[in-house]
Amino acid sequence: MQLHLLTWMEVEDYLKTSQGIIVPIGSTEQHGPMGLIGTDCICPGVIAERVGREEGVLVGPTISLGMAQHHLAFPGTISLRPSTLIALLKDYVGSLSRNGFRRFYFLNGHGGNIATVQSAFAEIYAGQSFLANPESRDIRCKLTNWYDLPEVAELARELYADKEGHHATPSEVSVTQFAYPDHIKQAELGELTPYHRFPTDAVDFRNCFPDGRMQSDSSLARPEHGERLVERCVTAVKRDYADYLKAS
Amino acid sequence: MQLHLLTWMEVEDYLKTSQGIIVPIGSTEQHGPMGLIGTDCICPGVIAERVGREEGVLVGPTISLGMAQHHLAFPGTISLRPSTLIALLKDYVGSLSRNGFRRFYFLNGHGGNIATVQSAFAEIYAGQSFLANPESRDIRCKLTNWYDLPEVAELARELYADKEGHHATPSEVSVTQFAYPDHIKQAELGELTPYHRFPTDAVDFRNCFPDGRMQSDSSLARPEHGERLVERCVTAVKRDYADYLKAS
Amino acid sequence: MQLHLLTWMEVEDYLKTSQGIIVPIGSTEQHGPMGLIGTDCICPGVIAERVGREEGVLVGPTISLGMAQHHLAFPGTISLRPSTLIALLKDYVGSLSRNGFRRFYFLNGHGGNIATVQSAFAEIYAGQSFLANPESRDIRCKLTNWYDLPEVAELARELYADKEGHHATPSEVSVTQFAYPDHIKQAELGELTPYHRFPTDAVDFRNCFPDGRMQSDSSLARPEHGERLVERCVTAVKRDYADYLKAS
Amino acid sequence: MQLHLLTWMEVEDYLKTSQGIIVPIGSTEQHGPMGLIGTDCICPGVIAERVGREEGVLVGPTISLGMAQHHLAFPGTISLRPSTLIALLKDYVGSLSRNGFRRFYFLNGHGGNIATVQSAFAEIYAGQSFLANPESRDIRCKLTNWYDLPEVAELARELYADKEGHHATPSEVSVTQFAYPDHIKQAELGELTPYHRFPTDAVDFRNCFPDGRMQSDSSLARPEHGERLVERCVTAVKRDYADYLKAS
Amino acid sequence: MQLHLLTWMEVEDYLKTSQGIIVPIGSTEQHGPMGLIGTDCICPGVIAERVGREEGVLVGPTISLGMAQHHLAFPGTISLRPSTLIALLKDYVGSLSRNGFRRFYFLNGHGGNIATVQSAFAEIYAGQSFLANPESRDIRCKLTNWYDLPEVAELARELYADKEGHHATPSEVSVTQFAYPDHIKQAELGELTPYHRFPTDAVDFRNCFPDGRMQSDSSLARPEHGERLVERCVTAVKRDYADYLKAS
Amino acid sequence: MQLHLLTWMEVEDYLKTSQGIIVPIGSTEQHGPMGLIGTDCICPGVIAERVGREEGVLVGPTISLGMAQHHLAFPGTISLRPSTLIALLKDYVGSLSRNGFRRFYFLNGHGGNIATVQSAFAEIYAGQSFLANPESRDIRCKLTNWYDLPEVAELARELYADKEGHHATPSEVSVTQFAYPDHIKQAELGELTPYHRFPTDAVDFRNCFPDGRMQSDSSLARPEHGERLVERCVTAVKRDYADYLKAS
Repeated sequence: MQLHLLTWMEVEDYLKTSQGIIVPIGSTEQHGPMGLIGTDCICPGVIAERVGREEGVLVGPTISLGMAQHHLAFPGTISLRPSTLIALLKDYVGSLSRNGFRRFYFLNGHGGNIATVQSAFAEIYAGQSFLANPESRDIRCKLTNWYDLPEVAELARELYADKEGHHATPSEVSVTQFAYPDHIKQAELGELTPYHRFPTDAVDFRNCFPDGRMQSDSSLARPEHGERLVERCVTAVKRDYADYLKAS
Repeated sequence: MQLHLLTWMEVEDYLKTSQGIIVPIGSTEQHGPMGLIGTDCICPGVIAERVGREEGVLVGPTISLGMAQHHLAFPGTISLRPSTLIALLKDYVGSLSRNGFRRFYFLNGHGGNIATVQSAFAEIYAGQSFLANPESRDIRCKLTNWYDLPEVAELARELYADKEGHHATPSEVSVTQFAYPDHIKQAELGELTPYHRFPTDAVDFRNCFPDGRMQSDSSLARPEHGERLVERCVTAVKRDYADYLKAS
Repeated sequence: MQLHLLTWMEVEDYLKTSQGIIVPIGSTEQHGPMGLIGTDCICPGVIAERVGREEGVLVGPTISLGMAQHHLAFPGTISLRPSTLIALLKDYVGSLSRNGFRRFYFLNGHGGNIATVQSAFAEIYAGQSFLANPESRDIRCKLTNWYDLPEVAELARELYADKEGHHATPSEVSVTQFAYPDHIKQAELGELTPYHRFPTDAVDFRNCFPDGRMQSDSSLARPEHGERLVERCVTAVKRDYADYLKAS
Repeated sequence: MQLHLLTWMEVEDYLKTSQGIIVPIGSTEQHGPMGLIGTDCICPGVIAERVGREEGVLVGPTISLGMAQHHLAFPGTISLRPSTLIALLKDYVGSLSRNGFRRFYFLNGHGGNIATVQSAFAEIYAGQSFLANPESRDIRCKLTNWYDLPEVAELARELYADKEGHHATPSEVSVTQFAYPDHIKQAELGELTPYHRFPTDAVDFRNCFPDGRMQSDSSLARPEHGERLVERCVTAVKRDYADYLKAS
Repeated sequence: MQLHLLTWMEVEDYLKTSQGIIVPIGSTEQHGPMGLIGTDCICPGVIAERVGREEGVLVGPTISLGMAQHHLAFPGTISLRPSTLIALLKDYVGSLSRNGFRRFYFLNGHGGNIATVQSAFAEIYAGQSFLANPESRDIRCKLTNWYDLPEVAELARELYADKEGHHATPSEVSVTQFAYPDHIKQAELGELTPYHRFPTDAVDFRNCFPDGRMQSDSSLARPEHGERLVERCVTAVKRDYADYLKAS
Repeated sequence: MQLHLLTWMEVEDYLKTSQGIIVPIGSTEQHGPMGLIGTDCICPGVIAERVGREEGVLVGPTISLGMAQHHLAFPGTISLRPSTLIALLKDYVGSLSRNGFRRFYFLNGHGGNIATVQSAFAEIYAGQSFLANPESRDIRCKLTNWYDLPEVAELARELYADKEGHHATPSEVSVTQFAYPDHIKQAELGELTPYHRFPTDAVDFRNCFPDGRMQSDSSLARPEHGERLVERCVTAVKRDYADYLKAS
């Protein structure tokens, strides 16, 4: 049930029974010496695709560019400014809501997106809230980080304990290894630099974390871990999505 | 040490020994039948003023309008759209950084601001990060919610347990009663409505929480609680601000 | 009758008898060696507060950041770009008009705001004017500079003649001395530089007026002058506001 | 010396001796039953063209669209929003300054432009003022309203006394009659409606002034008046422009 | 039938029989050593004026600033950024559509405008397309390049064969010579530089084409060619405009 | 050589020998009863991926949302406004150019993108062109429509003659059938409606072309045609990309 692989007539049919859609959102950014630049897109994309297939839920095209300004000192990173990402999300939601979608479940793969995505939700709602007599479309959006779902976080802790870290984590690398077994990277990893505070801009980030990893031992990643993580996450997202539709 | 009560020459002197500033940021929005519309400004303003006075730290003018779109169905609420608040914060930080300020500590009184303020930080940093050879001003910003500081949250729990709730909380109302003893409001409070999910737009909010409170029993507020909360918070902010300067 | 010190229910009551509000607007900018950085906020704030109290008129939160780009070469100045201030004013007026406010009386303390505030009014009206069948909210805005009210200007002339000047004027400094008697500044004032033309950008301003004053002998300021000026201005604003409501 | 009728090589030569340019700016808006929609462009255009020819000063292309939102209830009016006009002026000045122009003298024909044009100047200057170490292009802009030049205002008073009014004035209509003798319009003019306050939006304007004139008896216009007004104004602009170059 | 030379009452009459308008759009940019900076405005302006006169079609004010960023390395060029030109076109069309215009025929004189003008059309249409239940004004816009009309292109080929080139073409220069016989320029023309690819930014353009011409031998221009080209083009535009009204 | 499947270190290596990148850009929009909503992304994505693999050229993440406002009356379409797409492209190019990319080859699958993408290029170049002393990054962008490459257009003509049409063409549908053999759709196709003019907004489009196709008989599509089209196109893009790098 990927939007890209349907015709508009099939979408018209879908809207007769559901107004909900899952939208994977990631980022295109460095993930250290072993992590793929597409990691943050691949993870929610793989999970959402499977939820969509198994549950008959529509999955929109992955938003593959996110807010990654702090990674811009590493070649290959592409960042949208917060203002650009807000505009994109307004148009994404505005387009689909025009023909009947009302519940937007964003499955997120990148912590750096959270603030901007929530600001975009507020900007979208503000379009209604400033009107005194709104003929509201009653659009409701939700953001879920796949790696924060309790079952997933628990498994990551089990597998990697404090080696999980915060960027280029073994758990996300594992998921990409499971998804792209032909693209597993090997690299000599140096020592991790200690974490004092979250970096600010790109230069600061690279100064703090010269190889791009934040406390994460990516070398612990294994494709079979990825499989287990995806499995768990698919179950969790099914429940979370169902709860969302019910609650709103 | 309030910026508004200094001359530019005094600021010039201040910059010889510190590049830091505390900026209270709040909102102008309904706080239920007993809470003042200015609650979210008054709280961080009172706390910051005292930290500034006792520690010789400069305190910038309070940003009194925040992101409050979900409260717009109640008269008296004023909201900035996320895009407007981002522009304002860019100019605020950009102006002060021009003459030497580098560390911006935002003391926040409104949960609805968090995502937008963090997006603004990212937009500010992105100004540097997109440049390959940046002559960075090395601006660093931090957001602290006064009510989330551990000592403060602990005292609130002690005083009100689960009656604290999420909006028009007895703790914030207490602080305003302490700050403005002549403006303590009395009101017949109805039953609290149950909390299912965070509301989306203004109409949704008023439907969910008809008198404006989210799980909070504002009637428990007392000026003397306010005094204790301010006391605790001032101590906590002093420490948090010092840590921030040291870490960054 | 300050919005910040009311509950939303009190505002709801107020709207039953009036759709008008007074909004003080100032700036955060250098005012020479003796003038407070907050001068332009303090003056209209003090006056509006008293008008509000004596007349039962609602007073909104002071807009404390204005268009002060020409003062940016002096530390402590904060300027909004014109485009930012326009966005802020649209949201301020748009928020309050949502629930019934229709007449916005801006009491201004800063000459540098005038063009931008009037542009903002035009941008707000344009929102209606481009529509062919407008269901207009009939929003009407007015800008009054407190120092230009005839009675006030006359007293300033009487007190200071041509020493009043154009920036960091003794009359505005007097008002702040009256409002904040504990923050009266002393400073050795140099000679005033001659006025040839209004400066353009920040560097040009500081070149033309090295200590920040434009033809104003701030040393003539006295708190008791401030008291008289406020007195006069309060009377003038009461009349001006009443005329405005009647005429529009 | 109209920019449109030169080659770039001639402009290159011009820049060897002058960095100044005159820019006529008007509006495309109703001017009552007898006034041309192009009145506000035609007047400064005719005057600037002659100053340019007689003094060897370069004249840029007339900005023919202005801020005319309040006239939008009359067919044929075209208005730019303030934000659009600000963007246009930034690009106009930014383009010419790239290759050496530094002094921009705007000769304005429309009162409704004033606030927006001055906001645009501030936005342009702000581009420099926010920079701490500006390599300023030292751009300086000035706005002169042709009808406010003392000699011109005096002649208008002499000719029409209080019938001059504020919109579709006999003096501006006279100038267009002189410029376009084949396009002199005749119309039955009704009574003038009294002036209470400046209108707000387009609907309000048309309600207040149903035929589009504000206190102006356009029927007093004569082409020979136009000739005299242009004559006077050309002299005044020559002096004003020369003073401007000298002072800045 | 130029909008600038009508009263609003005449426009009101015109709208009873037609909802169409012709809008000349050009650019203010270098046209080599012999071409006028205003070339791209003069050509469509002259043609549109005559079509308007002979057919009774209304002609709006010429948009004299276009998208000319690639010419900015030559003094005298003025460019709007694409985003500015889009805003201008939205306001132009939005203003006239408010009172009844529905068909906008842009007669274009500058290739560099095409992409931006079409983007502006899309931005205007998007205003409607995002709405589910649009009360559309049914605005329709069309762009015609005068030099691309078959009869015109054919005559240019006949007169100049491959010396016509792409910028500062003898055909456009001829039209300006016909329109402004007193402003025919003489210049020693160097050799044409070969054309490899379309230049990107201003520096690149000047590097590729040092005197500003792209493959065009402007010296072949003659006022009498201009007369013939205008003649042909007027006939072609009459037909093209009539077809447009019929088809849409 | 897909950016998403590399590490930043591999990108760093790549930049030692090339500064070029291929960026597939498409749209998410209805393609009639038999065409996939993702058609315009799938086609350039498949082609670019293979060129990248065979030639060692880097391929950036597909831009899957395009300018599709005219398709918004069909469920499932997502459109970016032109202004949003311009912002996205600025950030995409700006991010990659920061670390060394200089040649951006956009392989486009959607005619509706052309004007906006070219406007974006101009907006990017304008960033340099407005500067007098640019330290240009010498960014150069090129747009190629895969279906307009001569070899490809020829084969499409050969296969479908005038049944190819303009939207939901058998050639693009064939490519998606080749790429996704499990997602070949069957549908009863009605008669094609005649083509009079290109539609304007979404409502107009659906009125003109009720099932979404513009003159295209999608039922002629075959996966084996898709294979041949991709083959041809890959060869053509290799040559076109090499020529581009050489010429610029």
